[in-house]
Parts: sequence; C-alpha cells; structure tokens
Amino acid sequence: MPKKSTSHPSPQDIKVAVDNCIFTVSDGELRILLIQMKKKPYTGMWALPGGLVQMRESLDTAAARILEEETGVRGVYLEQLYTFGDPKRDTLGRVVSVAYVALIPSSGIKLRTIDKYADVRWWPFRQLPKLAYDHNSIAAYAKRRLQWKLEYTNVAWSLLPPKFTLTELQEVYEVILGRKIDKRNFRKKILGLKLIHAIGEKTTSGAYRPAMLYRFWSKHPAIIKIL
Amino acid sequence: MPKKSTSHPSPQDIKVAVDNCIFTVSDGELRILLIQMKKKPYTGMWALPGGLVQMRESLDTAAARILEEETGVRGVYLEQLYTFGDPKRDTLGRVVSVAYVALIPSSGIKLRTIDKYADVRWWPFRQLPKLAYDHNSIAAYAKRRLQWKLEYTNVAWSLLPPKFTLTELQEVYEVILGRKIDKRNFRKKILGLKLIHAIGEKTTSGAYRPAMLYRFWSKHPAIIKIL
Repeated sequence: MPKKSTSHPSPQDIKVAVDNCIFTVSDGELRILLIQMKKKPYTGMWALPGGLVQMRESLDTAAARILEEETGVRGVYLEQLYTFGDPKRDTLGRVVSVAYVALIPSSGIKLRTIDKYADVRWWPFRQLPKLAYDHNSIAAYAKRRLQWKLEYTNVAWSLLPPKFTLTELQEVYEVILGRKIDKRNFRKKILGLKLIHAIGEKTTSGAYRPAMLYRFWSKHPAIIKIL
Repeated sequence: MPKKSTSHPSPQDIKVAVDNCIFTVSDGELRILLIQMKKKPYTGMWALPGGLVQMRESLDTAAARILEEETGVRGVYLEQLYTFGDPKRDTLGRVVSVAYVALIPSSGIKLRTIDKYADVRWWPFRQLPKLAYDHNSIAAYAKRRLQWKLEYTNVAWSLLPPKFTLTELQEVYEVILGRKIDKRNFRKKILGLKLIHAIGEKTTSGAYRPAMLYRFWSKHPAIIKIL
C-alpha cells in the first residue's frame, strides 16, 4: 500500500550511481568481478565496480566508463538489470544505483585498477565475502536473473567459442545454475528452444570420440519465441 | 566505447522520478493509462502517470503513491521495468526516470485525477498521441517487454477470471501481441509451458458448446522453467 505523502516533503537530494555485476565462468566456477575499497567506512571491503554518473553521460555510458576505469575491462555488452533505491542503502546520503550485468569470458582479459582502489579480482560467487553497501543483495539478484536468462535467452553464447559441443554448453549451464542437469533431458530441451543449430561438423581432436559441433543462431541478445 | 572522463566533471545534479506504464485490455484493444498535463511546456499533452521520488520513500513506494494520487488506481502489483537516463530526456534539467509496468483489469476501476492534471484516461495503444517528455519511447519499450513476458511468464493471469477457457486466454494473447495466432498451435504451445492446467470442469452457459475450463498454476509472477 502506498504511504500517504506528507504535505511538505523535503526537497529531493538524491545521487545516481551505476554498479556493474560482471560474471564469468572459469575453473568450473561462476565468478564475479570485484574491487577492493580504500575509502572509509568500507576500507578493505570488496564491492561491485561502480560510481556516480556524470552530468552529461547516459547511464549506459557511465557504466562502461566506470567499469573500464576501475577494472580495465572494456568493450563489454552491459545490460541494464535493475535499479536499487532503498532510502537507506548508502550510509552517506541517498544514492539510487542502476545496476548493470554482463557475462564475459575471462581468458585474455587483463585486470587493472586505479589508485582509488586497492585491488581487483574475479571472486568465486560461492565464496563471496560481505560486500560494501548493499552489494551482496545486488550481486545475488544479478545471479538470479542470469540464471533465469539461461532459461529463455541465448546469454550463454558469450562464454563459448563460435563452434561448441553440447557437452561444453551443458557445462556452462551447470556451473551457472549450480546443479547437475540430466544429459538427455538437457539435449532435448536445448535443441527444442531453437537457439542453436548443428553446423554439420564434428570435433577432430581430444580424448573423446568426435562430437557434433553447434552454433548459436544469433549472437545478439535474443529470447526464445514460444508462440 | 566509454568516453574519457573529464578531469573536472560538474557536480551531479540529477532528479529521480518514477513513471508508470499501466496496461489493460478492454473492448478488444490494448490500452495504456495516461494523464493529461496542465503545466508548461506540456500543457494539454498526455503523459504517463509519474513524478519525483520523495526523500524517505523507496522507488516501489513512490510508484504506487504517485499512481494512486494521479489516477486513483491502487493495490496494483507494479514491476520495475527499466531506468531511462538520457541526459536530455527532460528539458527542464536532468531527470532519471525509473519506469514501472503493470497489466490490470480495467473493469471496476474508477479513475480520478488531482487538480494538477486535466484528465485521466485509458488510451488505445494503437492510437497514442505524441506524449510529453520521452514517454512515447518508454511506453513503446514497456509494450515490447509485456509482449516478451507473454512468451515466458504467467503475466496474462491478471486479465482473466480465476477459471477461463483457452479461447479467452488466446484472445488476451492476440490483443497484446497484436496478431492472430493459429488456434491449434496456440493450444499445443501454451499447454506445453505448464503455466495452466485443466480443472475438470466445463462452461455451462453461453452460445457455444461447453469448453474446458483452466486455471493458472500460480498467480504470483512466475517464469516458465525449461530445464
């Protein structure tokens, strides 16, 4: 139920920030990109790479700029996730945070940070420390949405090579969903979604017998179409 | 590509607003709830019901409060949709707008507005006028997302009586998607989603032969589970 508005509300004084939830899968783990804070009251704590929006930049531009400044990661397709606006989420004043999410390969990416922060690292999601601000909630929400998106979008493509086997695809799903999936069931369902197609080639190396190779129909964000 | 940050960015001065995209289906049309503005420079133009967030309320609370104040609509499950933050979206200064969306039955809802606005009305979406601010873009995005949600969630439940026929359900889908759907195909797909189930009763009145009645498994927001 909405609260009644007061007759003389205080003038609005809210800052707008962006926070990035950048996920990867490496060494069989779902990981998230975190920076280590220097400033009080969060000295030594880890946080999502984020910061205030500048007056003349869009929210998307702010998210990309801040991600690059604070972690060195650039050229990523950042998708807006959700806006967190609890009046007490920041102790130093009211800050509304527009959260962004991306799923990227970590190989070949060189992390670096700026002097303002102590460190930057891919953290195993299962072992997250207590984060600064309400970043544990934001990260948990981002992971849940990522898991949902596996069910009805082609989001997994970004972690896979252009041609991949169903086993490789299943591994990505299992790591992100955090559970084993029945192989036969997975193949039936995933092929039924029409997100991927066999390319008529097989793997030629490796210790296992040759496996069919697949491709995603689209590398642009796409949702499954039921109707 | 992110722009380089200037060395002396201007201090942040951004207002935070909410805007509500409230949809219904009536008389065979998808409609959206709009208010008519009095204040300049938008005098006489229609707009989404929205306004500034108060200092001590959450974004969700602000959306519900403002919707009730400006339209009389209350008790609606408002879902956060997307945050629009283009630096030039409002001519009077920078305003970031957190958009909310809901799909509700219009029958039994009495609309009323406050003195600040000239009128409130359900507008056929196909005949939207040019709206104030960037509200045409916001409304178009909200409609697209609503259409997507039909594909992978139970969002249609809110427009239907507790027990309904597949024909009634199909009509909701057709109006929101804006196209005819093949009946056999629709039935096969929709039953395959496991969102609804037959309750073992049939319609007993009406000009047509008795039809099976169905129910949604859940009236809480739910997405289909593929895996």
